[in-house]
Amino acid sequence: MKKNNGLGQSTIVFKNKPRIESYYSMVGKKEGQGTFKKYFDCILNDDLCGQKSFEVAEREILERTILGALDKNNVDLSDIDFMIGGDLLNQIISSSFSARHFETPFIGLYGACSTMCESIAIGAALVDGGYAKKTICATVSHFAAAERQYRTPLELGNQRPPVSQWTVTGSGCTILSNTNRGHYVSMATFGKVTDYGVTDANNMGAAMAPAASETLAEHFKDTGTCPDDYDLIVTGDLGKLGSEILRDLMEHRGYKLGTNYCDCGQMIFSRNQRTFQGGSGAGCSASVLNSYILKQMDAGVYKKVLFMATGALLSTVSTQQGETIPCIAHAIVIERGEENADDIS
Amino acid sequence: MKKNNGLGQSTIVFKNKPRIESYYSMVGKKEGQGTFKKYFDCILNDDLCGQKSFEVAEREILERTILGALDKNNVDLSDIDFMIGGDLLNQIISSSFSARHFETPFIGLYGACSTMCESIAIGAALVDGGYAKKTICATVSHFAAAERQYRTPLELGNQRPPVSQWTVTGSGCTILSNTNRGHYVSMATFGKVTDYGVTDANNMGAAMAPAASETLAEHFKDTGTCPDDYDLIVTGDLGKLGSEILRDLMEHRGYKLGTNYCDCGQMIFSRNQRTFQGGSGAGCSASVLNSYILKQMDAGVYKKVLFMATGALLSTVSTQQGETIPCIAHAIVIERGEENADDIS
Repeated sequence: MKKNNGLGQSTIVFKNKPRIESYYSMVGKKEGQGTFKKYFDCILNDDLCGQKSFEVAEREILERTILGALDKNNVDLSDIDFMIGGDLLNQIISSSFSARHFETPFIGLYGACSTMCESIAIGAALVDGGYAKKTICATVSHFAAAERQYRTPLELGNQRPPVSQWTVTGSGCTILSNTNRGHYVSMATFGKVTDYGVTDANNMGAAMAPAASETLAEHFKDTGTCPDDYDLIVTGDLGKLGSEILRDLMEHRGYKLGTNYCDCGQMIFSRNQRTFQGGSGAGCSASVLNSYILKQMDAGVYKKVLFMATGALLSTVSTQQGETIPCIAHAIVIERGEENADDIS
Repeated sequence: MKKNNGLGQSTIVFKNKPRIESYYSMVGKKEGQGTFKKYFDCILNDDLCGQKSFEVAEREILERTILGALDKNNVDLSDIDFMIGGDLLNQIISSSFSARHFETPFIGLYGACSTMCESIAIGAALVDGGYAKKTICATVSHFAAAERQYRTPLELGNQRPPVSQWTVTGSGCTILSNTNRGHYVSMATFGKVTDYGVTDANNMGAAMAPAASETLAEHFKDTGTCPDDYDLIVTGDLGKLGSEILRDLMEHRGYKLGTNYCDCGQMIFSRNQRTFQGGSGAGCSASVLNSYILKQMDAGVYKKVLFMATGALLSTVSTQQGETIPCIAHAIVIERGEENADDIS
């Protein structure tokens, strides 16, 4: 309670209710056949999105998602102060190349699959502090582009290990603003880089769960809340195994995660889609937040959501050099804007 | 003047004078023989820094630089709210792996060689807004690690083209705080991604100069200032050619850059060091800011400095796919803390 950033060292409390003015999600064909098919704003028929390479497709998906969010609630691009985001590709080319077309100041981030939360947390701080009126917060990932950068090109037809996850082809964009309508970001907990020594680059869930448990415990400690205070606690992409590990780790810390806990990666694909542990990628939590979760908040199903995206901060070089996998998790709390929530769906 | 973030859309004005509580720089052997050899806090004898690979050396340099900044003015690590930074390696492994050891919430950025400014701008906003008491802002680059990632391994002995620059092995760390001592960050201008269609990945100066001119012109417009209002206007690493292009571009925009304009990349190596256009890399502007520039401010030589780091946002994949090179430049204004500037040198 001594720290000046709200409550604890890791948690910022926003006093001016930075609002979610608009949001939009776009996913690939496979994701569009999964659990949340009714909730995505746009489902592609072609994962190349009409482009000549998967990398350019990823950029195209991000651009269309941002345009979708602007259009959906008639947000004028000239009112946007900052575009904040990143992606999984080396040098975050999807985000920075996209930013050319929006001609708005760009804040590039890298937080692997935690980027959606990182961008909303920074955007919320800029809006809350009066440094921005509106910010675009967006991220993207593409299965085929990620596979050939992090693992092997799909053309090789390599077998996937049972602990692996499937990088989501998808994107999500949240537009934050200083208006007084809509759901708002009430808190953000920035995570510490956590490394429990996992070296298996195929087992991201196991690597990321400790970082998730650190941030979650820190959030509860900082804010004096407990799991039951949230209608929904949702992690980014720990997958099935990773979210089971998180439940165990939290129990060791004295917090029992109940039925209000779930994981975007575990949920996004249906059982018969054979993705082993589920979805992953920066676009996984981004597309689920900006479809299912926010639409359920619109509908009044959830009133207070703790959304925590998780990221594995490895590179192919670090893995080849025998390094372990440091991970991170950032959390935000979104509360339902009761005034008008029904209008913005 | 209509925007709520201070002055214009791109520029934030800080009202609470986020202070530079400490700073530190560390460079490699070659850089330590250059122009600023008297100003760096630490010069390595061995660019491997006692490590087994250049990548691990880069991380080690960053960690030592951060520890150096903490030690220099007895800043307690437990008082640090956020570590903010990034580097040039894929997935910013130097920064995120380093962050493990500081056990403080980590905000990972990617802005290529503009990262030092990006981290200070975000850190200053978090401190100014009351979201943090103290932040570490740091970045690093390593010549050999960058060469083998972006171009070719040194072992191949490839010839360097005359328009090329030499990635600086070096790191800089600035610790911002909400105290009332020291120089302070008064403004930040976040840049827009700018692409004039340059495709030569060896000619970064030409690619980055347009982004620098965009941000500089935006800054002057937003703040109503002109080049003469600053004792020093210093770009990150445009190099010789790039800074000449910037002078030309600014003249076309109606701003004449005088003798108070210089470039870290152009200055860091001496003429006989054969680096063609000069230095580059995230560590170039970071090490020059956190040595020569801030020490000259301590000494009262400069009272108001506009520091603008520039970044080329390409990747090897984007270049191989025939893409042009989008670039970005972020600027901050540092003003001398007159109260006590002599004490903190």
